[in-house]
Amino acid sequence: MDNWRTFYPNNYPKQAMCRFTFYQGRPIRIGSLITEPDHSLINQSFNAQERDEPLNGDGFGLGWYNHQISDEPATFKSVTPAWNNRNLLQLSRITESTCILAHVRAATQGLQVAESNCHPFTFKQYAFMHNGDIGGFSRIRRKLLESLSDEAFNQIKGSTDSEHFFAILQDELTKRDTLDMHDRMSSSLMATIRKVMNLCTSMQVNEHSYINAVLTNGHLAVAVRFTTDQPEEADSLYLNIGRKYVCEEGVCSMIDPGENEKAVIISSEPLSNDPGWESIPVNSMVVVNEGRVLDRLTIDPDW
Amino acid sequence: MDNWRTFYPNNYPKQAMCRFTFYQGRPIRIGSLITEPDHSLINQSFNAQERDEPLNGDGFGLGWYNHQISDEPATFKSVTPAWNNRNLLQLSRITESTCILAHVRAATQGLQVAESNCHPFTFKQYAFMHNGDIGGFSRIRRKLLESLSDEAFNQIKGSTDSEHFFAILQDELTKRDTLDMHDRMSSSLMATIRKVMNLCTSMQVNEHSYINAVLTNGHLAVAVRFTTDQPEEADSLYLNIGRKYVCEEGVCSMIDPGENEKAVIISSEPLSNDPGWESIPVNSMVVVNEGRVLDRLTIDPDW
Amino acid sequence: MDNWRTFYPNNYPKQAMCRFTFYQGRPIRIGSLITEPDHSLINQSFNAQERDEPLNGDGFGLGWYNHQISDEPATFKSVTPAWNNRNLLQLSRITESTCILAHVRAATQGLQVAESNCHPFTFKQYAFMHNGDIGGFSRIRRKLLESLSDEAFNQIKGSTDSEHFFAILQDELTKRDTLDMHDRMSSSLMATIRKVMNLCTSMQVNEHSYINAVLTNGHLAVAVRFTTDQPEEADSLYLNIGRKYVCEEGVCSMIDPGENEKAVIISSEPLSNDPGWESIPVNSMVVVNEGRVLDRLTIDPDW
Amino acid sequence: MDNWRTFYPNNYPKQAMCRFTFYQGRPIRIGSLITEPDHSLINQSFNAQERDEPLNGDGFGLGWYNHQISDEPATFKSVTPAWNNRNLLQLSRITESTCILAHVRAATQGLQVAESNCHPFTFKQYAFMHNGDIGGFSRIRRKLLESLSDEAFNQIKGSTDSEHFFAILQDELTKRDTLDMHDRMSSSLMATIRKVMNLCTSMQVNEHSYINAVLTNGHLAVAVRFTTDQPEEADSLYLNIGRKYVCEEGVCSMIDPGENEKAVIISSEPLSNDPGWESIPVNSMVVVNEGRVLDRLTIDPDW
Repeated sequence: MDNWRTFYPNNYPKQAMCRFTFYQGRPIRIGSLITEPDHSLINQSFNAQERDEPLNGDGFGLGWYNHQISDEPATFKSVTPAWNNRNLLQLSRITESTCILAHVRAATQGLQVAESNCHPFTFKQYAFMHNGDIGGFSRIRRKLLESLSDEAFNQIKGSTDSEHFFAILQDELTKRDTLDMHDRMSSSLMATIRKVMNLCTSMQVNEHSYINAVLTNGHLAVAVRFTTDQPEEADSLYLNIGRKYVCEEGVCSMIDPGENEKAVIISSEPLSNDPGWESIPVNSMVVVNEGRVLDRLTIDPDW
Repeated sequence: MDNWRTFYPNNYPKQAMCRFTFYQGRPIRIGSLITEPDHSLINQSFNAQERDEPLNGDGFGLGWYNHQISDEPATFKSVTPAWNNRNLLQLSRITESTCILAHVRAATQGLQVAESNCHPFTFKQYAFMHNGDIGGFSRIRRKLLESLSDEAFNQIKGSTDSEHFFAILQDELTKRDTLDMHDRMSSSLMATIRKVMNLCTSMQVNEHSYINAVLTNGHLAVAVRFTTDQPEEADSLYLNIGRKYVCEEGVCSMIDPGENEKAVIISSEPLSNDPGWESIPVNSMVVVNEGRVLDRLTIDPDW
Repeated sequence: MDNWRTFYPNNYPKQAMCRFTFYQGRPIRIGSLITEPDHSLINQSFNAQERDEPLNGDGFGLGWYNHQISDEPATFKSVTPAWNNRNLLQLSRITESTCILAHVRAATQGLQVAESNCHPFTFKQYAFMHNGDIGGFSRIRRKLLESLSDEAFNQIKGSTDSEHFFAILQDELTKRDTLDMHDRMSSSLMATIRKVMNLCTSMQVNEHSYINAVLTNGHLAVAVRFTTDQPEEADSLYLNIGRKYVCEEGVCSMIDPGENEKAVIISSEPLSNDPGWESIPVNSMVVVNEGRVLDRLTIDPDW
Repeated sequence: MDNWRTFYPNNYPKQAMCRFTFYQGRPIRIGSLITEPDHSLINQSFNAQERDEPLNGDGFGLGWYNHQISDEPATFKSVTPAWNNRNLLQLSRITESTCILAHVRAATQGLQVAESNCHPFTFKQYAFMHNGDIGGFSRIRRKLLESLSDEAFNQIKGSTDSEHFFAILQDELTKRDTLDMHDRMSSSLMATIRKVMNLCTSMQVNEHSYINAVLTNGHLAVAVRFTTDQPEEADSLYLNIGRKYVCEEGVCSMIDPGENEKAVIISSEPLSNDPGWESIPVNSMVVVNEGRVLDRLTIDPDW
């Protein structure tokens, strides 16, 4: 009874997903990512290009770090559309950070528009966001919950597949606490995908999964572009590296694009028309550290 | 500083307006207008067809009458998009009324998304909603306010051209309190348009105005489709009359369309694919009473 | 990290609960319960008398039936305080119903203020609301969830003890679908309390539980006032029966109080100063049908 | 029809006002003012001590400067109560500033709860907040508006007396743009009070005014405690100066209180139990610069 889309499904786009942008590197104003570029994340909230449905108006979320004060990120979330939220505009205008996550949401059918369903999700020093869909999630959900530690179980406040995915990821990170951060984060993310795929197999789920995601601790980040579907059906994901991402007089671009230096953007869609936007290969992972790409890994979907 | 669109105007559609639907006649569930039809008002909130920009996600409003209890309409307004508001869905599902107004908003540049800017506006037994734009409104606003009675002045809570228009209309209605309702409402609406046009002339405004609007007291209603621009530039407005508007198994239609009987819908866009939707001529007014069209009047833009 | 109260517990009242009002009988305006009485539910939202802490400002919810249109109730919920919600005022002013539930919330420590945590909760034709606290809920939660059917499990959208209690109740109702409604609803509610108490015992929970609750299908209702604590620690709950509850010129009262006729109010606190408000005995249940009290049952806490 | 308090005035506290806190000095986390102290501004939002009515739950606002990025302050406003807003908690936890304004609101009767009515208000580099009440505001409002420049007139988005007061103040600041900032800000604030008092006199207003307010440009600030009523009726306002305001293990205090060094707090109520809180004399003004009190001026109410 909670959501009219459940009852009037024909009125609503079938493949409703999300868009996100991640930044790691020298400090930049949050607005340089989400309000100023021609195709900023706010622009993507009503005008996404690389999906059938251009609208991502079911809430948004922002995460950012200020390491001088805390290891833990802050988040700002709202159920209103990003494009008309004046608090978001204000905050973005004068807040700088070395690590920023931003996400605009298109609620999947039947799911609630609620702050607790807005990305990024956080756990201790970690922040996580996801764009995509775990196939057959409603069928694997109870088994997934049973598999969690009490701590990860109690972290879950909402009902998205993404937050449940992140709960497994928390347990995987905790298990690997003797590894260095690079290995810990990348292998935990890989193990989480595998675990979810195994749950789908065990419940005979036939629907495909689409997992574009970023996990960060504010210094290191791992991003993944993954699908069980044909590669051409994967959600888009772009990488841009260089010295600095700069907005001047309304034109934004990466300085020294391609140089693996001090600024990394990973984004569902390119934010601007400069040449440095590179499509991340399907079923691969990118590891970022302090503004530089450290590693690129291939994911074998038939592991 | 209040709205990012002011600063990033290129990101946002130029001609941002609204969509509305009005019903008068036998009692129907509110959902029959705003959730159930294929092209319901909620569908128009993300998928409007007859405008360059399909999105009306900057809040919405609903007005309805229950004459057994009160002469005054109730309104329900929210700054969140209509398409994901569960309260709207719930209320619409079990509330019936003989007179319903519903409006989805696309905020004009620089204007705030606020409940006080959501239509319909009310005054005593009257309710009013508008889709369009008063050309050069910011330049005529102070003169307009000066012309108001204290009562009408104090009614204004928001910043839209529409609410200011309605404030003049309140004064015009009060002036004509000896006329019968038909003449009172139609000539007050006409006089208000003229007054606003005169204000524009006196301030040498060159921008065109677009005024599609409905005024009702719950029994009688006057609707207008007006522009100072070329007729082909007018916003769309449709009329559907018949015996009853019915939704059954997801298909909605007017029973006995064209028969001037017991149900009138006036809507920015047709709600359904049945044949009875007739375009209201540009620069004309329709007068409705208890579910029947009483009168059709032409407006001379060069009065 | 989600709620400052978790971190600054000394700033916040220890025993934070809620207030509710239920009506069943001849149609009355919703406002007659929640806005017009001297000690209306809106008044209780900032000025509750029978608790240490007068404030219930963490959202509210309303449920009501319109049997002419649907067996299922509608709900209206918001995270803003009841006392300043203009939509609530408007809706209450012109909506009549024969069965109304209204609830103002004071969030328990660590719990989110979210629409999904606002009462009443609904399932098919049933609506349910709770004022109180299940002792040690966080420790019994996983076992409780495991015990649920898939259907009841999937209904849960939020994180309150109340909604989890109602999930068990849904399963108990489904199990008893061959009983008549009176027995079905009363014994299901009783069984749910017992089941929760058994879960607490099995997990060695020592904290007391406080369960004031109402379950209704729109025609029949069962209300319970229960605690495992000393009877004098139970939350307050009042009953008022008569011919009609009427508000005139700002004074509200039950006509023919004490006559078991056509109007029943069950409320955390008396709404008005008239004499008919009777305290419901601790550890007892009241069964209401179409505006009359059918039955009063004692609950043996040591069953 | 907009606000139930207008209709049920007996239900609501007569003297409903607000509480605010201002900080200027070395960078501190926003949370050190609004969440961490025993009697933080969030605590005052439900537990104000120095007013008849403890509740300030009708929205809040925050303003802060980051001079490395912009001369203009950012604001964060919400209509929900401060005590349960998780975005406010998050933002406060990791944002530092040298100049912070925070305000919790109790809406005056008949006034809307809307973001546009939340303090602080901003204009270019200035921010302003007010706690109190301009007597007879509704009667002087039109004259006040007529007296404004177009620029100041167009800034007004809401309906509070406070924002209208600030509009006059904007014009006064603009008039004095050749003065140094100290004189410019203090004499503009003084002139605004006088202008409003003259408007009240000219409209034969008998109600008293209560104006506790802060105006800042991020470096300099002027604060005023003023009333036309008996001095003992003035709203409370406190000053605390010292080296640094520090919160450690849940205990907050001013280091080196009384030393006019690097940190100034001006607050409706003391935030903590340390000894440095000094009551600002009624009808006086305090001028602050970069964390030091520069000047204390007396206001002659019979000027």
